[in-house]
Amino acid sequence: MGISNQVVFSCRKVVQSTREAIVTLQKRNPAIQPLLAILQIVEELLKLNDDPKVHGIYLHLPPASITSRVLNTLKPEKDIEGISDLNMGRLIRGDLSKGFVPPLASAVLDLLENHGKTVLLVGGEGPLQLAVQCLIERSRMVTLKSHWSSKSLQEQADAVVLLDVGNMYVPPTWIRPGAAIIYCKPALEKGIALYVVFPINLCYNEHEMILKPSIAETLFKVINVVRSCSRWLKGQEYRPWHLRSLKLQPLTPVPSDLEISRAQIPKPVDQLAEEIGLLPEELEAYGRSKAKVRLSVLERLQSQPNGKYILVAGITPTPLGEGKSTVTVGLVQALSAHLKLNSFACLRQPSQGPTFGVKGGAAGGGYAQVIPMEEFNLHLTGDIHAITAANNLVAAAIDARMLHEATQSDKALFNRLVPSVNGVRKFSPIQISRLQRLGIRKTDPASLTPEEINAFVRLDLDPSKITWQRVVDTNDRFLRKITVGQASSEKGQIRETGFDIAVASEIMAILALADSLGDMKNRLARMVVGTSRSEQPITAEDLGVSGALAVLMKDAIKPTLMQTLEVRPVHINHTNPFNVKAHCSISIFIVTEAGFGADIGMEKFFNIKCRASGLRPSVVVLVATVRALKMHGGGPNVSAGAPLPREYTDENLSLVAGGCRSNLRKQIQIAHLFGVPVVVAVNVFKTDTQAEIDLVCQIAKECGASDALPCNHWAQGGRGCSELAQAVKEAASKPSDYQFLYNTEMSIVEKIRTIAQRVYGADDIELSPEAKTKTDYYHQQGYGSLPICMAKTHLSLSHMPDKKGAPTGFVLPIRDVRASIGAGFIYPLVGTMSTMPGLPTRPCFYDIDLDPVTEEITGLF
Amino acid sequence: MGISNQVVFSCRKVVQSTREAIVTLQKRNPAIQPLLAILQIVEELLKLNDDPKVHGIYLHLPPASITSRVLNTLKPEKDIEGISDLNMGRLIRGDLSKGFVPPLASAVLDLLENHGKTVLLVGGEGPLQLAVQCLIERSRMVTLKSHWSSKSLQEQADAVVLLDVGNMYVPPTWIRPGAAIIYCKPALEKGIALYVVFPINLCYNEHEMILKPSIAETLFKVINVVRSCSRWLKGQEYRPWHLRSLKLQPLTPVPSDLEISRAQIPKPVDQLAEEIGLLPEELEAYGRSKAKVRLSVLERLQSQPNGKYILVAGITPTPLGEGKSTVTVGLVQALSAHLKLNSFACLRQPSQGPTFGVKGGAAGGGYAQVIPMEEFNLHLTGDIHAITAANNLVAAAIDARMLHEATQSDKALFNRLVPSVNGVRKFSPIQISRLQRLGIRKTDPASLTPEEINAFVRLDLDPSKITWQRVVDTNDRFLRKITVGQASSEKGQIRETGFDIAVASEIMAILALADSLGDMKNRLARMVVGTSRSEQPITAEDLGVSGALAVLMKDAIKPTLMQTLEVRPVHINHTNPFNVKAHCSISIFIVTEAGFGADIGMEKFFNIKCRASGLRPSVVVLVATVRALKMHGGGPNVSAGAPLPREYTDENLSLVAGGCRSNLRKQIQIAHLFGVPVVVAVNVFKTDTQAEIDLVCQIAKECGASDALPCNHWAQGGRGCSELAQAVKEAASKPSDYQFLYNTEMSIVEKIRTIAQRVYGADDIELSPEAKTKTDYYHQQGYGSLPICMAKTHLSLSHMPDKKGAPTGFVLPIRDVRASIGAGFIYPLVGTMSTMPGLPTRPCFYDIDLDPVTEEITGLF
Repeated sequence: MGISNQVVFSCRKVVQSTREAIVTLQKRNPAIQPLLAILQIVEELLKLNDDPKVHGIYLHLPPASITSRVLNTLKPEKDIEGISDLNMGRLIRGDLSKGFVPPLASAVLDLLENHGKTVLLVGGEGPLQLAVQCLIERSRMVTLKSHWSSKSLQEQADAVVLLDVGNMYVPPTWIRPGAAIIYCKPALEKGIALYVVFPINLCYNEHEMILKPSIAETLFKVINVVRSCSRWLKGQEYRPWHLRSLKLQPLTPVPSDLEISRAQIPKPVDQLAEEIGLLPEELEAYGRSKAKVRLSVLERLQSQPNGKYILVAGITPTPLGEGKSTVTVGLVQALSAHLKLNSFACLRQPSQGPTFGVKGGAAGGGYAQVIPMEEFNLHLTGDIHAITAANNLVAAAIDARMLHEATQSDKALFNRLVPSVNGVRKFSPIQISRLQRLGIRKTDPASLTPEEINAFVRLDLDPSKITWQRVVDTNDRFLRKITVGQASSEKGQIRETGFDIAVASEIMAILALADSLGDMKNRLARMVVGTSRSEQPITAEDLGVSGALAVLMKDAIKPTLMQTLEVRPVHINHTNPFNVKAHCSISIFIVTEAGFGADIGMEKFFNIKCRASGLRPSVVVLVATVRALKMHGGGPNVSAGAPLPREYTDENLSLVAGGCRSNLRKQIQIAHLFGVPVVVAVNVFKTDTQAEIDLVCQIAKECGASDALPCNHWAQGGRGCSELAQAVKEAASKPSDYQFLYNTEMSIVEKIRTIAQRVYGADDIELSPEAKTKTDYYHQQGYGSLPICMAKTHLSLSHMPDKKGAPTGFVLPIRDVRASIGAGFIYPLVGTMSTMPGLPTRPCFYDIDLDPVTEEITGLF
Repeated sequence: MGISNQVVFSCRKVVQSTREAIVTLQKRNPAIQPLLAILQIVEELLKLNDDPKVHGIYLHLPPASITSRVLNTLKPEKDIEGISDLNMGRLIRGDLSKGFVPPLASAVLDLLENHGKTVLLVGGEGPLQLAVQCLIERSRMVTLKSHWSSKSLQEQADAVVLLDVGNMYVPPTWIRPGAAIIYCKPALEKGIALYVVFPINLCYNEHEMILKPSIAETLFKVINVVRSCSRWLKGQEYRPWHLRSLKLQPLTPVPSDLEISRAQIPKPVDQLAEEIGLLPEELEAYGRSKAKVRLSVLERLQSQPNGKYILVAGITPTPLGEGKSTVTVGLVQALSAHLKLNSFACLRQPSQGPTFGVKGGAAGGGYAQVIPMEEFNLHLTGDIHAITAANNLVAAAIDARMLHEATQSDKALFNRLVPSVNGVRKFSPIQISRLQRLGIRKTDPASLTPEEINAFVRLDLDPSKITWQRVVDTNDRFLRKITVGQASSEKGQIRETGFDIAVASEIMAILALADSLGDMKNRLARMVVGTSRSEQPITAEDLGVSGALAVLMKDAIKPTLMQTLEVRPVHINHTNPFNVKAHCSISIFIVTEAGFGADIGMEKFFNIKCRASGLRPSVVVLVATVRALKMHGGGPNVSAGAPLPREYTDENLSLVAGGCRSNLRKQIQIAHLFGVPVVVAVNVFKTDTQAEIDLVCQIAKECGASDALPCNHWAQGGRGCSELAQAVKEAASKPSDYQFLYNTEMSIVEKIRTIAQRVYGADDIELSPEAKTKTDYYHQQGYGSLPICMAKTHLSLSHMPDKKGAPTGFVLPIRDVRASIGAGFIYPLVGTMSTMPGLPTRPCFYDIDLDPVTEEITGLF
């Protein structure tokens, strides 16, 4: 009864404070008291309605204060008196599964038990009387109703219920011997109406009448509170979600993604959230079909076990992509709509660059989509915009700081950085952190020596060693390499730098790895933006900007809830592990996606992300296409925009077999390095022949895949990959034997070599002199035990994009090694990797349009 | 009855379609029919609930389909049968102002009129019986209730109501002669239960019984629909808002803005919206305290007259700002919380640049704030981010296009721009627009001549004449002038360009001026980004990007609803005129703000914005401070960061008088040029003396101000400027005589001269040769009749920031003239104007932090 006691206590406290408020208001201005008091009560009720710790509200108020507005404000789920209109209506209709029965009515009914079949109701107009009548009749007793004077009626009754009849006299002769009288009258306690139930069980005799104030009503009040708590607790328990599937009636030929998306009316996101067990207070709606989920859900569910974690990875793709997102969405549609398993997909918010550039959106496709796809593909909940804003604030802070240091004396800098405000000079907390890093244990600005002031005010950034780039979420190739500071106001402090696409920002990586607001803030503070002339790493915290970054990112860290075409919940959150913790339960399936081929995306996912989150995947779904396998088997070049050669549209089993025995086999082996079972999903295109598909499945199983199945989610939705879902379910039920590929305590070079040899199949690695120097520097700075995030082409297992299949006999050249200290990894650069895509001659935006009347968008895909 | 007819029709149609759905489902799979049918009904109901054209829903369904879920889904406001739990509860409680009485119950009651006082109810269990009983008793009749066999009861009744008793025989002897029998039985009409009320008014005789099926029930059904419509219409009418003010208890000294903001719990935004008469379907929540308002509200309110439009402008400010935003917010708090006038403020979303730079946020300050201020000052609803994304997509498109044109033949460009998709080549609509502008009236790509292809594919942009800049919403001074395209992948196509702060984008100006989605889209298409080598203007539509821009901006155009500390609604939307149209009514006050001094912000507001919107301001509130007036009267220099000289903290009446007789007088005169009355608001600082304040008010009135008053909103909230509010109300009630300063048909030079002479007080203007050439070019291109948007310092009426007061005897130099064709104005540059602020040595961000546990933000102001 721990919870209910607390609840009862909360309610009492509130009642008290509300009454006090009324009294106070009355004193101040008797004229306006009544209305204001009501508003005050309404305000209190709104707070109590929202408070997840309060499970019952008892309106211990003068009847005049219980107005329509007050009753309508009271949340029916907390109305333990059963007096709100909605609860009264439920009772009248006989639906007692929700709502509450008024305690007085329960008490009367309880007393009536064993008192015959015919009950006379006297007095008590209005809802209470009707509630009592209703309950009596529903208990298969018969009610008689009459006005008081009609004495003949009483003679027939086995029991008489006197509701609120005041002090009216009851002549003993009216009562049939042996009949019970239940006498309910309002006990005025300090001006507040409280019903007391007196059971009078006797051969009625006025002089011998024994009045025993019953505690029945109070008891039923407590019972209602307990009921409210237990309903709430029940809501927290694992249960199969009662999700209404949106039925799919796939058309042939498959319409455009936007047409499919628009044909399905999304369920209101608050309803979806309720159906999957999120509390209303955990949700922040963004329009009608998107919502942020508050991090408080993590705390609420912290004691729940983890769900099954399914990673969708791919073989080495063609430049056209092989459909991992559609498989992810399709698989979740199948798991839930067809296998009736609670499951959801975790996807990344797509960058606007590709959406308006070459690739289009990333909401899945065909009948396996996140809807509304235009919401998903545009600003969504602004998370990437927040990353852009935060990233560029750091950049502006770097250049401005270098300018100010170049043009001011130590003293001037110190006076400005630690200004006297109303005669007081104080370090801000972020400055004290910097002092501590410098080994200066002082907090009084006046106590710093000139040397300490110099060390404090001068970050002394080396312009040639600034690693921080600006970002935009646009494919703007002309920003790859630029010169900034050319206006005369910047006094000649020009330097070369560049922009990356926003999703390449270290802040995005932090968002993917942080496991709480505090962790995110610490990582943001640790980000190294460059090196001082004395070779010291300079962090975002040194710039004084890390608190502001955390503020800019505080909403972006919350996952976003959306839905698929078949109404499975989807979380969008840059693959961070919240998805998994939220709603976790051993019976829940969480399906997420690793970028690029398994050699890139999956390896990083396992070695970096799983290390950070502590979560262990149960199954890898490896997506393959006949097209990509033919390429690996020796088929001609595939490139975006150009028509596909005939080898790809006609049956060619030998190319398929070649691809399976090289790339597919190798990618399966990579997953097995981590001890995770693999299910191969063949994403079927309409030109694939049955023989080709069968061949892929057969060889995949020979290569050690637990299973291999074709899937047709694009054309058929969840139904099109229900066999895949079944195979995934089976594979996930087996015990797994997860292990990391390397121990982080190995040297940076050893870690890189391990990945190159065991994952890529290289003979060895070769570091450039620059890479060697950097590696030594990182070891010296204490960054040696960070995991490795390889920056390598995704178009080949090797560093050479045109080497398809499973290349061997090569040495992997490490051009440079960089460090993302905030995110927490070292990233070696293998060859040239562009972090800023370009626009083609005819970008996607040519077809994107808005109908100003219907507000419908066309041309997004 | 036009509306109700339509409604009844809608309902019928829906009933039909729902039944058809059930039938269809039954046919397809009888086993799963019942559940699916319920879900289908729920789905239909959700649509009907949301449809503003449907005012009543009648569940013409088999009783088995009317489940708890169906009843709970039905919106009580549209439940014309009165069967939802909430409506039943309302009826039981006796609150008939909302909800609906079941038509059968109304019909029975209607028939009972004139039939005595004692009514016997027989049969009919459940809600309907209770509803009837309830209504009868509330009509001061007495109900008797008994089971059917108890014949003695009938003898006492004046009327007998038989509810749903089937075909039971009623012995005539049971009925008292002259008593009425009302016989309600379900008439099974095609398997659907429909109650029919038969009045039998007779000395009961079985053989002579005349059954007249009454239309009473149907009538009451229609009455309920009419009632629903009229309630809805009533909701549309002007009425004083029933807003619950959040009480302010101002503290001394005034706490930080963030502390004040956080001490007030904002009202849920959906509740606020309801209180000010917005429909739920017009709202898109963004979290709990912000919401976008859909543009459909404009259509709904289009026939309503405009409200009173109050413009808050200022005298020429010091670099510290004189508090226009706080006056705007304080005035609205006063108008509504203290004068009880419906009113709201329209503010601009603040740029993040200043928020993290020097100025801090822009949510007002002290006890005159928009709350939650951290929401207001951070990403808000992402509108500025949308502008950044759209602006930079144009920039990327420009450079990419120049690169592609430089490296490809006409044929290659044409093949890529108009690719063959599945063997078919087609122009996209945006390409057809370009062809039409080129005078090529063809739609078949194959029919173009080589010359036409050349004209079509080559925008031939002159790199030195590109006027489009990139933007970021960060104070990043190093981006003022940059060189782009330096990576080898850009093949030497380097050029100089720069970034502006995001709010300086032409797209922001379009957002401020567009009056519909269609207008915005057209303006975006017309934006000129540069000039071709043959001197032709090149537009966003030529780049093929304007549809995508409209898509990116489709949500940004919707105004955002927030609230002030005292719960007045606030719209944030870049000063576009939606604010005014939405909720407009002659009794509503809309308070908006013009940037900078009246010579800059107000002049543009009147000549550009009011011209575009067609709206006419009623009053100008001119904000002055003793501090700024002393500066204009000859006080020493005021600069940010430095302590104020003593002249500003000690009383100095002669400096004050000097400032009033120069700058204040001139700014009042400027407002009078437009025929708008001026109320001067003296924003009181704690160092101001009473004599100083009195002097300002006295001189302001001498200079022609309708009134002049001190205001203390910062320290006291709305109460602190209730006198100002009263004065504004009075000034707004006078007829105004609005006129524009110039006719747009005048030449560009004449328009500039008019502004310079009449507003700034210049002797004349002097155009640079470049400005002259541009002016001629714009006339030649047909842009001559656009209004003028002067880019001049706001720190002086002249172009010289250090000339305070009201300078005369100067010639205004026009350095350059540019054109924003999409926004629709010509903007002359007077001197050097920075469109990209810089960060100071110690930016605001040093103090901004996030507590990761409480999620509270510190340091924002």
